[in-house]
Amino acid sequence: MSTLIDDRRKLHQRPEPGFCEIETAAYIYERLLSLLDTTAGDSIVTGDDVIDTDAIPGLTQAQLDESARRALEQGVSPELVEKFSGGRTGIIANIKGNRPGPVIGLRTDIDGLGVSEDESDSHVPTHLGFVSQIKDVMHACGHDGHIAVALELTKRLTENRDFPGAFRIIFQPAEEGVRGAMVTKASATEGVDTMLGMHLGLGLEAGEVGAGTHGQLATEKTQVELTGVQAHAAMAPEQGRNALLAAASAALSLHALPQRGDANTRLNVGVLNAGSGLNIIPNRAVMNVEYRADKREVLADLKKRFAAVIEGAAQAYGVESTITPLGRATTLVCDQPVIDKAMKALEGVSGVEKSHETVLFAASDDVSIFIERVQDNGGEGTFLIVGCSSPGPHHSATFDIDETALPIAVDWIEAIARS
Amino acid sequence: MSTLIDDRRKLHQRPEPGFCEIETAAYIYERLLSLLDTTAGDSIVTGDDVIDTDAIPGLTQAQLDESARRALEQGVSPELVEKFSGGRTGIIANIKGNRPGPVIGLRTDIDGLGVSEDESDSHVPTHLGFVSQIKDVMHACGHDGHIAVALELTKRLTENRDFPGAFRIIFQPAEEGVRGAMVTKASATEGVDTMLGMHLGLGLEAGEVGAGTHGQLATEKTQVELTGVQAHAAMAPEQGRNALLAAASAALSLHALPQRGDANTRLNVGVLNAGSGLNIIPNRAVMNVEYRADKREVLADLKKRFAAVIEGAAQAYGVESTITPLGRATTLVCDQPVIDKAMKALEGVSGVEKSHETVLFAASDDVSIFIERVQDNGGEGTFLIVGCSSPGPHHSATFDIDETALPIAVDWIEAIARS
Amino acid sequence: MSTLIDDRRKLHQRPEPGFCEIETAAYIYERLLSLLDTTAGDSIVTGDDVIDTDAIPGLTQAQLDESARRALEQGVSPELVEKFSGGRTGIIANIKGNRPGPVIGLRTDIDGLGVSEDESDSHVPTHLGFVSQIKDVMHACGHDGHIAVALELTKRLTENRDFPGAFRIIFQPAEEGVRGAMVTKASATEGVDTMLGMHLGLGLEAGEVGAGTHGQLATEKTQVELTGVQAHAAMAPEQGRNALLAAASAALSLHALPQRGDANTRLNVGVLNAGSGLNIIPNRAVMNVEYRADKREVLADLKKRFAAVIEGAAQAYGVESTITPLGRATTLVCDQPVIDKAMKALEGVSGVEKSHETVLFAASDDVSIFIERVQDNGGEGTFLIVGCSSPGPHHSATFDIDETALPIAVDWIEAIARS
Amino acid sequence: MSTLIDDRRKLHQRPEPGFCEIETAAYIYERLLSLLDTTAGDSIVTGDDVIDTDAIPGLTQAQLDESARRALEQGVSPELVEKFSGGRTGIIANIKGNRPGPVIGLRTDIDGLGVSEDESDSHVPTHLGFVSQIKDVMHACGHDGHIAVALELTKRLTENRDFPGAFRIIFQPAEEGVRGAMVTKASATEGVDTMLGMHLGLGLEAGEVGAGTHGQLATEKTQVELTGVQAHAAMAPEQGRNALLAAASAALSLHALPQRGDANTRLNVGVLNAGSGLNIIPNRAVMNVEYRADKREVLADLKKRFAAVIEGAAQAYGVESTITPLGRATTLVCDQPVIDKAMKALEGVSGVEKSHETVLFAASDDVSIFIERVQDNGGEGTFLIVGCSSPGPHHSATFDIDETALPIAVDWIEAIARS
Repeated sequence: MSTLIDDRRKLHQRPEPGFCEIETAAYIYERLLSLLDTTAGDSIVTGDDVIDTDAIPGLTQAQLDESARRALEQGVSPELVEKFSGGRTGIIANIKGNRPGPVIGLRTDIDGLGVSEDESDSHVPTHLGFVSQIKDVMHACGHDGHIAVALELTKRLTENRDFPGAFRIIFQPAEEGVRGAMVTKASATEGVDTMLGMHLGLGLEAGEVGAGTHGQLATEKTQVELTGVQAHAAMAPEQGRNALLAAASAALSLHALPQRGDANTRLNVGVLNAGSGLNIIPNRAVMNVEYRADKREVLADLKKRFAAVIEGAAQAYGVESTITPLGRATTLVCDQPVIDKAMKALEGVSGVEKSHETVLFAASDDVSIFIERVQDNGGEGTFLIVGCSSPGPHHSATFDIDETALPIAVDWIEAIARS
Repeated sequence: MSTLIDDRRKLHQRPEPGFCEIETAAYIYERLLSLLDTTAGDSIVTGDDVIDTDAIPGLTQAQLDESARRALEQGVSPELVEKFSGGRTGIIANIKGNRPGPVIGLRTDIDGLGVSEDESDSHVPTHLGFVSQIKDVMHACGHDGHIAVALELTKRLTENRDFPGAFRIIFQPAEEGVRGAMVTKASATEGVDTMLGMHLGLGLEAGEVGAGTHGQLATEKTQVELTGVQAHAAMAPEQGRNALLAAASAALSLHALPQRGDANTRLNVGVLNAGSGLNIIPNRAVMNVEYRADKREVLADLKKRFAAVIEGAAQAYGVESTITPLGRATTLVCDQPVIDKAMKALEGVSGVEKSHETVLFAASDDVSIFIERVQDNGGEGTFLIVGCSSPGPHHSATFDIDETALPIAVDWIEAIARS
Repeated sequence: MSTLIDDRRKLHQRPEPGFCEIETAAYIYERLLSLLDTTAGDSIVTGDDVIDTDAIPGLTQAQLDESARRALEQGVSPELVEKFSGGRTGIIANIKGNRPGPVIGLRTDIDGLGVSEDESDSHVPTHLGFVSQIKDVMHACGHDGHIAVALELTKRLTENRDFPGAFRIIFQPAEEGVRGAMVTKASATEGVDTMLGMHLGLGLEAGEVGAGTHGQLATEKTQVELTGVQAHAAMAPEQGRNALLAAASAALSLHALPQRGDANTRLNVGVLNAGSGLNIIPNRAVMNVEYRADKREVLADLKKRFAAVIEGAAQAYGVESTITPLGRATTLVCDQPVIDKAMKALEGVSGVEKSHETVLFAASDDVSIFIERVQDNGGEGTFLIVGCSSPGPHHSATFDIDETALPIAVDWIEAIARS
Repeated sequence: MSTLIDDRRKLHQRPEPGFCEIETAAYIYERLLSLLDTTAGDSIVTGDDVIDTDAIPGLTQAQLDESARRALEQGVSPELVEKFSGGRTGIIANIKGNRPGPVIGLRTDIDGLGVSEDESDSHVPTHLGFVSQIKDVMHACGHDGHIAVALELTKRLTENRDFPGAFRIIFQPAEEGVRGAMVTKASATEGVDTMLGMHLGLGLEAGEVGAGTHGQLATEKTQVELTGVQAHAAMAPEQGRNALLAAASAALSLHALPQRGDANTRLNVGVLNAGSGLNIIPNRAVMNVEYRADKREVLADLKKRFAAVIEGAAQAYGVESTITPLGRATTLVCDQPVIDKAMKALEGVSGVEKSHETVLFAASDDVSIFIERVQDNGGEGTFLIVGCSSPGPHHSATFDIDETALPIAVDWIEAIARS
């Protein structure tokens, strides 16, 4: 079996939730150590130089401890567990070409999903014995394949440095929930001229590829906490400050926001939990709210108006409010020159039967944040889709990668890197 | 006919709305000039020394002009019209006793009501020819009688100065809507030791009196204006700032306030007008809101929370808000020592068949503000009720004073003043 | 001066509000009587056969009486005033061609607008002496020109009956507010195979024409009345049923409706008036609400959900609700075959410098209702735009027709009729 | 140690939550079997003849199973476990006097509370070794004492039947949360002429008693479930029916209810939980709501208006609603004749140092339902308070009964029964 396939299957057995990818990071790190050559100008960046851990949303110490415990138990060295603990599971690999030229970046997402993998024999990973060993977590979105592709690319580019400039791989935690890019430091994309993302599947069959995407709405996912004052609801309701009613008022007011003539927008109060007892004025309410727009500046405007509604409702009811970001993706704008270059690079790639300049991508991926940062610095980028038939949809228990897609992905990106 | 009755009937024919009582003030003023004796230490205060005209709520220039025009037409001298124009219709008369002693104050309200008086022959003022000559305005709450009583008292006390200290009469505009006391300057009650109010009727029959009242809720009446930004509702709703929705949200939130364990409270959004056209985001909303409490400090708390709701709702919708006071009365707390003195003073008053220490008064009268100011300065006060059977209820077209009540009122207050 | 220009200028001086176009209807009617030939198969339909007067929204008897009074004063015969009173100002003219063929319909709107026309000399109608004689009403949308064009067409087609089938002109009242088509009886379009509308201006310059339009949102304009029970807000609030709060709750809930993935929609609560006094539980609230969608079936869904919100809010507050339609336009779908025919008919029309198959029309016109009815019966239709430079925009005091557009309109429609 | 004290301490060690009192019921039942004499006319009623199990609110099968398992483990016979399982833990004991006369009823509540008892040595039950053996459940409201008193009374009255009529003890489950009386069948109080409740403590010191109470608000505790339709919040929000917003709207509308001139009322939405994910239109919301009034008929009116708000909000948002009662107590009106009789009966009771005709009781006890049922049938009742100093307040971990109160309670009620 090729290393490419072997890597993918090994990683498939050890899927880890976002920011808890300690085993995965250790696997990547050890491989990178064996492939990169610092004397050739290669480098690895980890830890606080990659992830702004203070900004990680909604992670509990218990989850972090559990992932560290599991990694140790699995045989990861205490040094590496320490290195990648506390949510610091991002790694950046820089590979130097043999001549001057631009820097190409590739975002590779590494997290699994909270899905219980199908254990019936008809499911290929089960049949072949590489089904997930971690209960209720599964690589159900193909990120195992993404890592394997990135490692194979590292091998090829370090073995043959005949390419201009440099190639940088950002191994990003927590793409699910669009949480990882948001907390990746700006330095990760500094100096990158062309930023790539690559995703398997997304509706394309094996043999089909897309050199770009369109249609992603920018999105922010937030948690609102409202904190008031408890009081006995019959004896002294006036002493309370009612967080439940503040949340109710805010929820209704928020729904007047997404009606605009200048953009397509959405807003949803997805969760509202408030109060503790029948005879107590509720002093706490938590709302999870997301909003989206097909224009970056409109999302920025929505963000301000969203905050104003929360603050206003809080003031009206005399409660305190905080808004914590849970996740973020921006509009994903693919640049035509990169699309053109990627289309041209397809020429030498075998196995591609059908290619699209751009495909519809109605979901969210936070690779958009990296691409936007590079664009803001004067660079360009695109999101490559490599088709990959699967028995079940993304995020389902029967999702599986058609492994013939993996060498196509490697060949294509290598061709782009060397062009 | 006695001057007392004659005054009352003349005044009854010329009722004027609050702050527009120019003819009334001129009538009072000329009479006071003829009765008071500055060499004996008497004085009259008028104009900006009585009323804080800047604080007068909701009066239009058109109303003021109309009242000035009417007064001139009726023969009031241009000097007096000028003196009492612009809402400055309050007058204070100070009458000096012949020996040292405390200052007793008497609030006398002078405004009429927006009621069309009954012109059928069964209505006594019509039958006897002194029905209101001013369309749609009527002395339907007995203030014409109050003024007549105050003038008669002035006559008796200036003719016979055998009483201690001084007697001060505050002729107050705009008691209806509890607007006049609020804008009367604090100087009006400075130095007053005992503050009295007197009202005819209020549910007591002729021959029945009450030396105090209980049960009045303190109240504030306000106008809220919310100002946003218009925009085309279909083309560019996002450019608008919706004052109508801000008002709707505020109205709902306000109704969570009057549920308390520490007091009996009320709140009502009585009027809400917003928006101008079907396809325009409404940029203006006006709400009239009143709130009440049976405790002064609870009203103060409600005032803060009311303001917080308005400001919060305004912030939530990105609109500006202002709150303008329309009227105010406080809790009316009658002091037992004054009640006792008033009960004792009844002894020499003929015509009284039944007396109560205190009677229930569920409505609002802003004499409470004067009494509270005096109490805050260490003084005391009460609200005297002089029964007065009427064919119709207060504020109705068939309301009428049983004139036998007038000498009872004069005798009673004179007895208090001389005691 | 040609009859065409003369008609337009005469009509311009007598603009009348929707459903009050008595003088206008009389003018049209008398001209039709003089042109049509019943022996040739022509006919005129008026009164209850055109307009369903029971369905006319929001008209007061005072308005109707005033328009009848004005028409009589202007010299319209009592018989014609009677004929066109009560909102029955619609007229249908049928002109028979000299051979069998399809029926072509033309909607001609006849109402003026509540705008005060510019009386400065720089405004052409003022300068030339045909400015509006009716205070605060103006032909500020070119309907005077539409009528003149229709009358000229009638003249040409009756003078030379060399055209197939028949030509039917629907003189429609109250296009402004999209009220007139909604109450025009279905019989008006029965038998019509091709339904045309024609509008001057709409952003096109003189010499420019459009054979169709796109982009109109379907819209419904409604008035909601909520009726509860008054009660004293302090003494017995529980006896009241609060229509103001019901309206506030409904307004907030309605704004959650126009967020959809299947269509572009809008909703606006443009006006909300509720309550009468500070200390009275408000028993009446009136809201004007409009909603729009770019799909007919989505508008139908919005209509149901809108009604559910109103009924639900009413139930929650124990008040009664009614929803009265104020106006309605549907999506305006122009059929390509008619557009093609109209484009071809342009060939012989002089003065046209630029032509478009379709132009953007972001506003609403209820000609869409007639076109939809014909389409529902298997026919087809389009909305013709004849460019017409104007110093001021539509609906403004300085709007004016470039009269060179009028013969272009006549020639074009005549060419279509004869083709 | 007396049986009275021994019973109390044994019961104290085995506190059970409401409707799960299987051990407690078995203990009572076996004692009753040993004391009652069917040949003398005594009887015991259990099971479905006492409790309407279908109406029990919010109990899960897991809780019921757990209590059955625990009772079996503790040595209760399978027959008795079966007898009292499924929430059927109510028991009625009828004791016959030796001569004709009225039936006196006594409600005895038997449930413990979800409180973890203080295990420090300073806590008397811990020090003396009878602290709760059941984790997180405690007799923290004195119901253990109530049962001991009732059993001692049974002993005395069966040993000496010198009393008129009959004495009926209703051992009621689930007084906490006012759930048990509500689901006790009406037959429990049929035929009762005088209904008594007895409670230890409630603010009175040992040696102090009250023959009645005042001040309890009637209350209903309910759970509202709103069920809509899930949909993707970005792709197809229009396919969803939003239960979260329906709940928010209802919560705000509900708070306009408790402002009344005819009664003192309260309403609280204590808990609101809605929604499952950020990008899903929430299809489920649960609210816990309680409302109170100091008048029975006002509570009935609130109940109707509460239901109207829920139904209206549900309709507005197109969701389904259900309202499930969680608990209920009515106003507790004590009849003066019974109070008089109880005061008189105190004469022979030793240990009473201070007695009140009535004491303030601001909390809720569902004995009010039994008393009301008897009153509705023409009988009368009262709630006896027997003072009982405690180191900690009711419902706290350090609550404890001053056992000297127990014989006072027994003597007093016995005296009433024999009078």
